[in-house]
Amino acid sequence: MRVLVLGGDGYLGWPTAMSLSSHGHEVAVADNYLRRQVVTQSGSESLTPIRTLPQRAEAWKEVSGRTIDVHVIDLCDYDLLNRVVREFHPDAIVHYGQIPSAPFSMQGRSQAIFTQLNNVENNLNVIFAILENNPDCHLVKLGTMGEYGCPNIDIEEGYLEIEHKGRKDILPFPKVPHSWYHASKVADSTNIHFASRVYGLRATDLNQGVVYGVHTDETLLDDRLLTRFDYDEQFGTALNRFCLQAVVGRPLTVYGSGGQTRGFLNIRDTLACVELALLNPAERGEMLVYNQFTESFSIRDLAVAVQHAGKELGLAVEIGEVENPRTEAQEHYYNPTHTKLIDLGLKPTLMSDDLVKNTLQVLMQHKDRAVVEAIAPRTTWS
Amino acid sequence: MRVLVLGGDGYLGWPTAMSLSSHGHEVAVADNYLRRQVVTQSGSESLTPIRTLPQRAEAWKEVSGRTIDVHVIDLCDYDLLNRVVREFHPDAIVHYGQIPSAPFSMQGRSQAIFTQLNNVENNLNVIFAILENNPDCHLVKLGTMGEYGCPNIDIEEGYLEIEHKGRKDILPFPKVPHSWYHASKVADSTNIHFASRVYGLRATDLNQGVVYGVHTDETLLDDRLLTRFDYDEQFGTALNRFCLQAVVGRPLTVYGSGGQTRGFLNIRDTLACVELALLNPAERGEMLVYNQFTESFSIRDLAVAVQHAGKELGLAVEIGEVENPRTEAQEHYYNPTHTKLIDLGLKPTLMSDDLVKNTLQVLMQHKDRAVVEAIAPRTTWS
Repeated sequence: MRVLVLGGDGYLGWPTAMSLSSHGHEVAVADNYLRRQVVTQSGSESLTPIRTLPQRAEAWKEVSGRTIDVHVIDLCDYDLLNRVVREFHPDAIVHYGQIPSAPFSMQGRSQAIFTQLNNVENNLNVIFAILENNPDCHLVKLGTMGEYGCPNIDIEEGYLEIEHKGRKDILPFPKVPHSWYHASKVADSTNIHFASRVYGLRATDLNQGVVYGVHTDETLLDDRLLTRFDYDEQFGTALNRFCLQAVVGRPLTVYGSGGQTRGFLNIRDTLACVELALLNPAERGEMLVYNQFTESFSIRDLAVAVQHAGKELGLAVEIGEVENPRTEAQEHYYNPTHTKLIDLGLKPTLMSDDLVKNTLQVLMQHKDRAVVEAIAPRTTWS
Repeated sequence: MRVLVLGGDGYLGWPTAMSLSSHGHEVAVADNYLRRQVVTQSGSESLTPIRTLPQRAEAWKEVSGRTIDVHVIDLCDYDLLNRVVREFHPDAIVHYGQIPSAPFSMQGRSQAIFTQLNNVENNLNVIFAILENNPDCHLVKLGTMGEYGCPNIDIEEGYLEIEHKGRKDILPFPKVPHSWYHASKVADSTNIHFASRVYGLRATDLNQGVVYGVHTDETLLDDRLLTRFDYDEQFGTALNRFCLQAVVGRPLTVYGSGGQTRGFLNIRDTLACVELALLNPAERGEMLVYNQFTESFSIRDLAVAVQHAGKELGLAVEIGEVENPRTEAQEHYYNPTHTKLIDLGLKPTLMSDDLVKNTLQVLMQHKDRAVVEAIAPRTTWS
């Protein structure tokens, strides 16, 4: 299968590209390094030292004998995106190429608007490039579980059968997003759903949980193949941030009571899920939606797990409690369904003491690179 | 009450401004004439001859003795919008100022993206200008019934109580919009809802049906106070278009079977609804949602009504049938709730033979201005 990975320089995009390549798919990546730029601007940097895309592709060629095409383009530039899609002619496009940070989007008006316009525009460009070049091409779009918010009912996978006043319909699951960023993903889902109904687009929307972990099979092969690892308040996510804090001897920043519960998955499972979505494509006119996570944890649970694993490595891990910078329920019902990817064959890599210890050990190798000033939360929701 | 009307040059914006002014409110309008520009670009023009905003305000002053402040600004320019909000310090903002056309948005990628980015950006600017200058200011935002689509269940007003697997919640009513334009309004609703929850914004989202009619109490006072009247395939809406077609002797362009059913309201009721929303503001942190229409009709019903009224005026009105350029169900269930505005005191101006005849008579005065080439549908959904 020919697969174009958008956002192919990112935390998940680059490992996905290598994984698909190693499984025999023809892979091209496109990225404009925007993520690197905004993380640098925020005063942080990937903990892991990462190479440029051409260097990565060259190292991958050396290690695996396989080629990954590299295109350094802005997805908001339709002419450039369109040329890549026309020339590479993918069977599927995996779209990770968006501003992915809730706190970044909450910094102010400019960041809110930049996040929403960038994400909405580039997603529309991807849809139109598919329709213009090859309407059979399957769009696999990364969404987020944060689109749903925390309703008081079980969250289904994308759609909900509703019975109301004696009549029934299956409708998009109502969305109550957590941030301007999450709202941008809701807008994308609405647009993809529209394109599937009206233009016959084939699409799979992956509402992903919080991803953790450093390594995949391919990043382990050579240091030049490492993926980025963010731990700062804007682009770092809960478990990864806690692991870094443990390693540099800072208290784990649990927000408020820590009762906030979310779905999580290992980075290896992201790769497996995306490939399952590719191998089981939507029909023309269909938007499949999967909730892509394997386990739910409260933030408190994660802090305790990191503390415990740290102890076994001789790290004295303190659990801090900081005032919650976000407007969110700290104790709430949370029970999202997530069986569809399991039904397709996903074998989850579940969280374990060993897995957390392993992450801590990898981070210890790079801890001198950490910018500790970038860790503490500064962006508030109010 | 001090009210800023955004999109105050439009079909509804200008009459709303005059109506509020005549009822004793202090009114300012902002507009950048974008609607005039895109209608002209599409090869059409308002059937009614309309003045510039300063001329309109001057005529209004002459006729009524009251002042309407005029600001010719682009709402996407935050500095300009922010200055108007800071200096006028409104108690409420009525936001009509968006690209309002489904067919325009369906013309191609550029128009889809322009519609979505313009609408999303200017709506975010309005939210941030309120929060920056006066968080107590009430946002009255015009949405559309087309956000909901045509589900097989009754459409409630904005929210739906859902019982699922033995648990309950009240959640935003699921949206299945009809076009890229309607999807932009869904994104706005998501953003306003978020701002109400997180920043305590006070907002009322008016999901309006299709508006028809030419005159309001104030436009009748002086020809210089006329509001625009669009009949072209992009900016004209069903009943208004049929009336114009009847007057210029063209067959009424019923799309497909004409079984498409939508909610409609008279332009006078739009003004009444908006004022009711202003007089009954949302609390801080609350987003009220009203379905703003008074009656449902199928497109076929409307054509027959126009034919009948035309006959009484001696017009031989032919009902045509054109292939439906839109991807939509032509026969479907449609039963949206619309009681909240009635509960607030709305006395609907219902459709009648006399009302349609009256519209036809007004249009006959201006029929020499009609660009008949602009009437037939050209924009398709496929």
